[in-house]
Amino acid sequence: MFSSLDAYKEKMETLIESLSSKLKDTGSVCWQIGNHVKDGSVTPLDYIFFEIFQRHNFILRNRIIWRFNFGLNARKRFSGRYETLLWFTKGSDYKFNLDPVRVPQIYPGKTKRTEQGYKPSGNPKGKNPSDFWEFDAKQSFEGQPVWDFPNVKANHPEKTIHPCQFPNEVADRCILALTEIGDTVLDPFAGVGTVVSCAEARSRVGIGFEFDPRYLMLANERLEQARLGELVVRQSGRLPRRPNGNEKVAQVPQEWLDLG
Amino acid sequence: MFSSLDAYKEKMETLIESLSSKLKDTGSVCWQIGNHVKDGSVTPLDYIFFEIFQRHNFILRNRIIWRFNFGLNARKRFSGRYETLLWFTKGSDYKFNLDPVRVPQIYPGKTKRTEQGYKPSGNPKGKNPSDFWEFDAKQSFEGQPVWDFPNVKANHPEKTIHPCQFPNEVADRCILALTEIGDTVLDPFAGVGTVVSCAEARSRVGIGFEFDPRYLMLANERLEQARLGELVVRQSGRLPRRPNGNEKVAQVPQEWLDLG
Repeated sequence: MFSSLDAYKEKMETLIESLSSKLKDTGSVCWQIGNHVKDGSVTPLDYIFFEIFQRHNFILRNRIIWRFNFGLNARKRFSGRYETLLWFTKGSDYKFNLDPVRVPQIYPGKTKRTEQGYKPSGNPKGKNPSDFWEFDAKQSFEGQPVWDFPNVKANHPEKTIHPCQFPNEVADRCILALTEIGDTVLDPFAGVGTVVSCAEARSRVGIGFEFDPRYLMLANERLEQARLGELVVRQSGRLPRRPNGNEKVAQVPQEWLDLG
Repeated sequence: MFSSLDAYKEKMETLIESLSSKLKDTGSVCWQIGNHVKDGSVTPLDYIFFEIFQRHNFILRNRIIWRFNFGLNARKRFSGRYETLLWFTKGSDYKFNLDPVRVPQIYPGKTKRTEQGYKPSGNPKGKNPSDFWEFDAKQSFEGQPVWDFPNVKANHPEKTIHPCQFPNEVADRCILALTEIGDTVLDPFAGVGTVVSCAEARSRVGIGFEFDPRYLMLANERLEQARLGELVVRQSGRLPRRPNGNEKVAQVPQEWLDLG
């Protein structure tokens, strides 16, 4: 689609300029992006976008890391297992609602000494989810129509990942934290409509653009399901699932034990 | 120490130029860095260093994220819980040893279908640790002399974190993967000597520079302990510890339950 990284940067700059002119002063931009890898040389694309957004006077509030647990295995470097999400605001008077996105405390029973004796030291409503977000591959893709894409071949999400195929909760958490009921949420690369569906489900107004008619059709179907409350998505706020050691897949196979 | 971000950049550029002239063609640079935060505006410092290293023809192989589980809680943005480590090489003929840094498979029992029936699908030696590294605060700081620093006041590592206080395993994994026995490892900001001690313990030659005489003294002591095999560090290759739910700190306190 783009002849070079420079052509891509130029196009994106034009887009970001338009977005900026439409964005409210209290609004936020969330920009989710991966790496450009050529001959084993890695360029994290957030480097490029940080520069562009900064030139348009946006302020970076967080570079959020979202980690996944699947993908190609690299041999001459460490395997890529995360992408980044840049959260920018136009000014200092931005919306940020922490309470709806708090996650459970890992150590809720931790105490601190007070004048009234030892008291729980955390917040009972949960903790700030931090700038690092973790998702479980299996749960994230369960029941998602992306499973039906022609380029997803086997029942392994890692086989071929659609670029827009990020977990519902990434969008959901941004919408809950950075907007209020009735606000407008725009996704210029709507894909299969994860963001607009989330916006709908959270009583925001979702607007999405998508170039590819196949994705667009699917996005409209999913949006309709979201309106009817029938879109199957992973519940937000759940901790990633970890094998408990009793399941077969979590046990070291006899075959490996036989190796010595 | 520096009057501005620009003064800092200039100084760092001079340093990186010298490092480059000393580095072997098969060598690597690992650059660990955090964020510069001013008035709630975040500048990830790896952005600055990527630019400098690129100007000196270094190739980025991975931007590694290392996550920790403690720190200040932000109220108007998401709390910072990771730093980055940029791994650069001078050329394409670089050293990378995956086997000594493989980590246990999460699902060792996962199988794939082969002509000989279902076989375990992973590598029995473990998996590529990926570009995302997780460490447990408590284990990382246990038995570390950093506990004795005057600016660490309570038994919470989060109270005041010495900038050099990264877990031993961050250094250890880089040394194991990117160097061989007998190679030289240079740390221009040696602090309390984590990197040089690791180098020593792994039969590499560690060289460190440190400006602050208090840290330097401690670094020398720790290096001596490493030589004698007496330095207490967290064992590499262990998964982060997670509370199992039975421990008191992992249980929701009655006080919170009473809130309704």
